[in-house]
Amino acid sequence: MEQSKFEDKKITTRAEDYNEWYLDVIEAAGLAENAPVKGCMVIKPSGYAIWEKTQKILDEMFKQTGVENAYFPMLIPEKFLKREEEHVEGFSPEVALVNFAGGKKLEEPLVLRPTSETIMYDVFSRWVRSHRDLPLLINQWANVIRWEMRTKLFLRTTEFLWQEGHTVHATYEDAESRVLMMLNIYKKFAEEYMAIPVIAGKKSESEKFAGASGTYTIETMMQDGKALQFATSHNLGQNFAKVFDVTFLDENNERQFAWQTSWGLSTRVIGGLIMTHSDDKGLVLPPKIAPIQVVIIPIIIKEWDKQLVEEETRTIMSNLQSLGVSVKLDNRDLRPGEKYYEWEKKGIPVRIEVGPKDLANNSVVLARRDTAEKKIVSLPELSEIVIVTLGLIQESLYKKAEERLKENTVSVDNWDDFVKAIENNKFVKAHWSGDEDVALEIKEQTGATVRCFPLDQEKEEGKCIKSGKPSVGRVVFAKSY
Amino acid sequence: MEQSKFEDKKITTRAEDYNEWYLDVIEAAGLAENAPVKGCMVIKPSGYAIWEKTQKILDEMFKQTGVENAYFPMLIPEKFLKREEEHVEGFSPEVALVNFAGGKKLEEPLVLRPTSETIMYDVFSRWVRSHRDLPLLINQWANVIRWEMRTKLFLRTTEFLWQEGHTVHATYEDAESRVLMMLNIYKKFAEEYMAIPVIAGKKSESEKFAGASGTYTIETMMQDGKALQFATSHNLGQNFAKVFDVTFLDENNERQFAWQTSWGLSTRVIGGLIMTHSDDKGLVLPPKIAPIQVVIIPIIIKEWDKQLVEEETRTIMSNLQSLGVSVKLDNRDLRPGEKYYEWEKKGIPVRIEVGPKDLANNSVVLARRDTAEKKIVSLPELSEIVIVTLGLIQESLYKKAEERLKENTVSVDNWDDFVKAIENNKFVKAHWSGDEDVALEIKEQTGATVRCFPLDQEKEEGKCIKSGKPSVGRVVFAKSY
Repeated sequence: MEQSKFEDKKITTRAEDYNEWYLDVIEAAGLAENAPVKGCMVIKPSGYAIWEKTQKILDEMFKQTGVENAYFPMLIPEKFLKREEEHVEGFSPEVALVNFAGGKKLEEPLVLRPTSETIMYDVFSRWVRSHRDLPLLINQWANVIRWEMRTKLFLRTTEFLWQEGHTVHATYEDAESRVLMMLNIYKKFAEEYMAIPVIAGKKSESEKFAGASGTYTIETMMQDGKALQFATSHNLGQNFAKVFDVTFLDENNERQFAWQTSWGLSTRVIGGLIMTHSDDKGLVLPPKIAPIQVVIIPIIIKEWDKQLVEEETRTIMSNLQSLGVSVKLDNRDLRPGEKYYEWEKKGIPVRIEVGPKDLANNSVVLARRDTAEKKIVSLPELSEIVIVTLGLIQESLYKKAEERLKENTVSVDNWDDFVKAIENNKFVKAHWSGDEDVALEIKEQTGATVRCFPLDQEKEEGKCIKSGKPSVGRVVFAKSY
Repeated sequence: MEQSKFEDKKITTRAEDYNEWYLDVIEAAGLAENAPVKGCMVIKPSGYAIWEKTQKILDEMFKQTGVENAYFPMLIPEKFLKREEEHVEGFSPEVALVNFAGGKKLEEPLVLRPTSETIMYDVFSRWVRSHRDLPLLINQWANVIRWEMRTKLFLRTTEFLWQEGHTVHATYEDAESRVLMMLNIYKKFAEEYMAIPVIAGKKSESEKFAGASGTYTIETMMQDGKALQFATSHNLGQNFAKVFDVTFLDENNERQFAWQTSWGLSTRVIGGLIMTHSDDKGLVLPPKIAPIQVVIIPIIIKEWDKQLVEEETRTIMSNLQSLGVSVKLDNRDLRPGEKYYEWEKKGIPVRIEVGPKDLANNSVVLARRDTAEKKIVSLPELSEIVIVTLGLIQESLYKKAEERLKENTVSVDNWDDFVKAIENNKFVKAHWSGDEDVALEIKEQTGATVRCFPLDQEKEEGKCIKSGKPSVGRVVFAKSY
């Protein structure tokens, strides 16, 4: 019997230390680790497989809307970044510069892309000539570098992986509808695949993307009540078009500045996934994002069980695979208990135990990761029950997160209640007049920021929770990652 | 009727100027263009789609052999690169350095990865503890930076995309068999998907990877007779293991240095693909690597044809798609001739013209990109004939390239013939003793380098073509990209 190579380090509970718990879950599930370069991470195979599945799902959704993938250089001339005033102001504290290459000092430093608006739009200015070239719908899967002071695996790293979509349109309306279309794709991905309920909304002026006219966001609630910005979609207006000269001849042969959008989602969402569903035993993965949905553990007690168990295991496996279920067979020479423990930490949604005792009754044991429920299932029904169970787990994880979001979102109308609610890690719906100085004051006093103006919010007149100035609707305040 | 947005720039013929032809084909097919950063390229959607297909095919082949994907930082501490002496010597002239980031000068410069051996193996040294952790089979899809002086789209660019596989083994034999396994995957990909015949062989000492014990290569012949190194697979021996302390406890509980391999294939292969099959009319793509295999052009002469043509077009399209054929419908408001011309330049293997005249006879026109052959096909037979035709094109492109390789490979046994053969852009099989000084002399006098010791070469005693020193087999000499 081999010794397990997984060290039996206990996972800190959420109650003990939420932050330690998060890091312990990542370690126990083998998702990522700190790299030997400050602020960077190594995404390990189990973590990268989640990113690959994310890419596959989103890529297909993007392409269905006509988006095409391309690739632009990661090195950007520094002068490009400086062209759009707000953009450079937003990103310059975070940039890394290459100023020595090929044995020589460079005449002009190159920036490692923190985002690609500037280099793409310089190129787009040559691609777009006429209204017939529009819309231009480009996406890129890439790494980006933002020099962060305080980093945390997945949530905030110096280098991260993402997709950045960039589109060019003939009218404001086309751009705005693309911005909302992509926000909806992110929402669908979060809710239907990652089982994370979201609040879709618009960012305030001070929280919008540097250089955008308007930023839409989807905000999610972690188990500690903090908000995590899951993805954003920006209407760039004509801001970049005017600076990079992205123009087109309209149907009347007149030159017009184009309307642009950009939208992105990064490896950060894996942090959100971990913090939404996992428990004190480790990672919990919704089946639709789990790279492995079912793990099969053969239990061989006596040598003469072996052939039967192995045969049945193979049949179960190929039956499930033919239904499109992703199955892992763990036939390592380890005790079953050790294996259960390991796959539990790794968050595999369903475990099937195939042992001689149950097989004698033509059945196996099926265990759910999320509820720890175990039941005996007869072999002829197994495939169907696995499919149903995967669906139930997906649904149940979503519901649990949705209830958490509901229970921890409160509407308040006076400052004392506001402070108390934020202290209790709630999402707080409260009136705010849009005055950025007041938002800053609120942040300084409570740690909460304006997460968004929710899109499904009804208009409601009121007074700012802090300043008493008139407001036309509630915004969501919360502490955030 | 819209005006075509594709400029009617004539493609330079191969006979006129091979290099210009190559660049014209890339431009005409919209594959890539020079970026506004020196030496870098923008991979445009049509070019990137070929890379995506390459990734999909290879990734599946890798995973079938147990390889898992992961991601390591693109920033590498400069001291890491310096640890392996030959490695740093090989790469230091090409590295780009980040020494300013987040508003501060960095204490230690960071290198943009030219390849990831050093950062990965520092991490592997902690992942590998026991023989039970082996083999460790990791691959990464990533961008790398090598500061090149003379760049050329796809073939040699400052930044390029690639995959780099890195494996760790308990024995030399395991490592060597992995090196050859991956070489075979590259060979299979080149031959069966890209329709490019290859010569698999071993590199000479001076041409091997910096830090490797031995490098295997697959070499391909371009239409101008020059060699293009398509992919390489390295046996790293224990060279890096000793420097990065990648050790394991063997079955006797004794600490051993591990045996390692690395292997890579990059966007350069798209350059090889272009130069193998394309003609003076533009790009030619083998069906198995073509992102779009069939383009359908509806021909509407009179308004009342429209409904019939559109209906039949939809049926043809869904029939083909249900058979797994990738189809593009071009229903833009352009003249059919303009469309033919455009898709010809873009290398789409099969074109189907759906017009009222042929439909009246229950048929359509099918045109092959490679041979320009056109024929009338009856609708009930269409799907089957398309599938057969795609297979024929794939086969025929391979055969054509194979004949070219055969016809242009010669064995010579004296220096005058050697010089003449190289002048005539042949692959030359000739004896060479392994003396690197002589190889250098040959290169200086003829421009040819030792491409490889072919693996399928029989042993044959002889004398070096240049020095007369004894040799045990022929090597392949050629000019190369």
